[in-house]
Amino acid sequence: MTVTEVTISDVRAAAERIAGYVVRTPLLPAPWAPGDLWLKAESLQPMGAFKLRGATNAVHLLDPSVRSRGLLSHSSGNHGQAIAWAAREVGIPATIVMPAAAATIKVEAVRALGADVVLVPNDERESTVDALRLERGAAVIHPFDDVRVISGQGTLALEILDDLSEIDTVLVPVGGGGLISGVGVAVKAVSPSTRVIGVEPELAADARESLSSGRLISWDPSLTYRTIADGTRAPQLGKITFPLIQETVDEIVTVTEEEILAAVATTIRRARLVAEPSGVLSVAAYLADPGRFGRSVAVLSGGNIDSGVLKHALTV
Amino acid sequence: MTVTEVTISDVRAAAERIAGYVVRTPLLPAPWAPGDLWLKAESLQPMGAFKLRGATNAVHLLDPSVRSRGLLSHSSGNHGQAIAWAAREVGIPATIVMPAAAATIKVEAVRALGADVVLVPNDERESTVDALRLERGAAVIHPFDDVRVISGQGTLALEILDDLSEIDTVLVPVGGGGLISGVGVAVKAVSPSTRVIGVEPELAADARESLSSGRLISWDPSLTYRTIADGTRAPQLGKITFPLIQETVDEIVTVTEEEILAAVATTIRRARLVAEPSGVLSVAAYLADPGRFGRSVAVLSGGNIDSGVLKHALTV
Repeated sequence: MTVTEVTISDVRAAAERIAGYVVRTPLLPAPWAPGDLWLKAESLQPMGAFKLRGATNAVHLLDPSVRSRGLLSHSSGNHGQAIAWAAREVGIPATIVMPAAAATIKVEAVRALGADVVLVPNDERESTVDALRLERGAAVIHPFDDVRVISGQGTLALEILDDLSEIDTVLVPVGGGGLISGVGVAVKAVSPSTRVIGVEPELAADARESLSSGRLISWDPSLTYRTIADGTRAPQLGKITFPLIQETVDEIVTVTEEEILAAVATTIRRARLVAEPSGVLSVAAYLADPGRFGRSVAVLSGGNIDSGVLKHALTV
Repeated sequence: MTVTEVTISDVRAAAERIAGYVVRTPLLPAPWAPGDLWLKAESLQPMGAFKLRGATNAVHLLDPSVRSRGLLSHSSGNHGQAIAWAAREVGIPATIVMPAAAATIKVEAVRALGADVVLVPNDERESTVDALRLERGAAVIHPFDDVRVISGQGTLALEILDDLSEIDTVLVPVGGGGLISGVGVAVKAVSPSTRVIGVEPELAADARESLSSGRLISWDPSLTYRTIADGTRAPQLGKITFPLIQETVDEIVTVTEEEILAAVATTIRRARLVAEPSGVLSVAAYLADPGRFGRSVAVLSGGNIDSGVLKHALTV
């Protein structure tokens, strides 16, 4: 497998490009936790997740002729919302293809961002996007396996490194690997002795298995869909993200569903931040073994939690 | 009534004094709200409220001989926690006198900050503090009617004015008036055309009545204790805060209990921030009439919400 280069220069250029379009999120002390923990609260991005960074960077890098033909996505999650948001910010049309069975609140959220929503049966989402892409010549931005997206996500690491020194460990949730590969590139360039540790649900541990076996391992959705951390259900890392992770990530650890739900509750009660299950994987890993990581930053990657899950977490 | 001077210089000096001891909280856009709303998230202070600013400023201004005799407080709320926190930061002992009926979780929170807790019957709290003060020569810092405290609270307005320009309105929860008088001094010095509007619960509207009648009006606790916004139950403004409010505050508006609870839920769901009922008064007032305030900053003053109230807010 050839390593596609994503360099610290790409990340720095992305940071300049997206400034003014994304929030410089706070790095908050977590004195309630044992040891020395800090939270990078990406849940405070206006659409609720780090995904806005990569989408914004990618949209700004589109050729003007492509821009005018608009953007397409079949993600009904944070990536789709980030695409809709970024498209609106630069004034181009976006179409999000969503399953007809999607919760109305999700559909309305995307519409409120000014995007068109096309509702289709769940298994026709990708084919519908393909058909629309061919018909319109619109651009599709991959949720993680895209150099522009990875560079954008890495910008949050630059902010962390600006705000805090002598960090032993940065803990990062892992789904398709777009976030952690961008963070890995930035951290290893600026502070090589800082460990970058990925966190996955035990029930969707394809990245850990890929890293330990040295080859891209896929987990069937029938397995990954068992976890409540819906942002990590991608069946495998990407062809671009995997080699970057091999180069820059020290280790991938896993957490249980119980640890994830407990971390949602703790983050609400103690940090006063609402984060989604995928967003608190990093907090869950830290709290499982605080002594192990030294001065740590946990990336709280997103806050778009289902209201039922939120209530459930507060009762366990 | 003589106006005790609190000047912009006091606020600027406080800002310098407390930097490094308090979090520079983020000013976050709230694109989900109609109009143009920004949130100053003081709920993200490490002990969960703006009170840390004033307490820290006051503690640093104590004479060294007084410091060594420690701090006393009978507040079991955010002020008590702020005192315990600030005392620990400068390495002096703190004693918090709390009612024996206080929730264990509150007592443990104060103990976790390294403070001694003295449990007494509720109506003996003030007398116990007085006795200990005489016995030890320890310092008692008033929760709001203190120039050092007011100056400290005002520092958050300097941050707001640094982060955003052309603000039409700053909305501020009002209890004893320590926060809004500090904010008023800072805003009127730096941006005189910006309106400073206080927000009270309809059920504890002593400050509105005082401002409109031109004299200090007291509401009996049997009235003020009806509101769920427990941070605003002080029976009246202070002798220092009231004249400062007369000088610098444009208006005080009120919100209903239903609007307060709805604002707690909205702030959690849309802004992904956990705030207490007193903390969201500003958001409740804005949402009641968004068109009225122009570009607005709502100070989200605290996030220490009772878990029962939190669950209740999420079900209404």
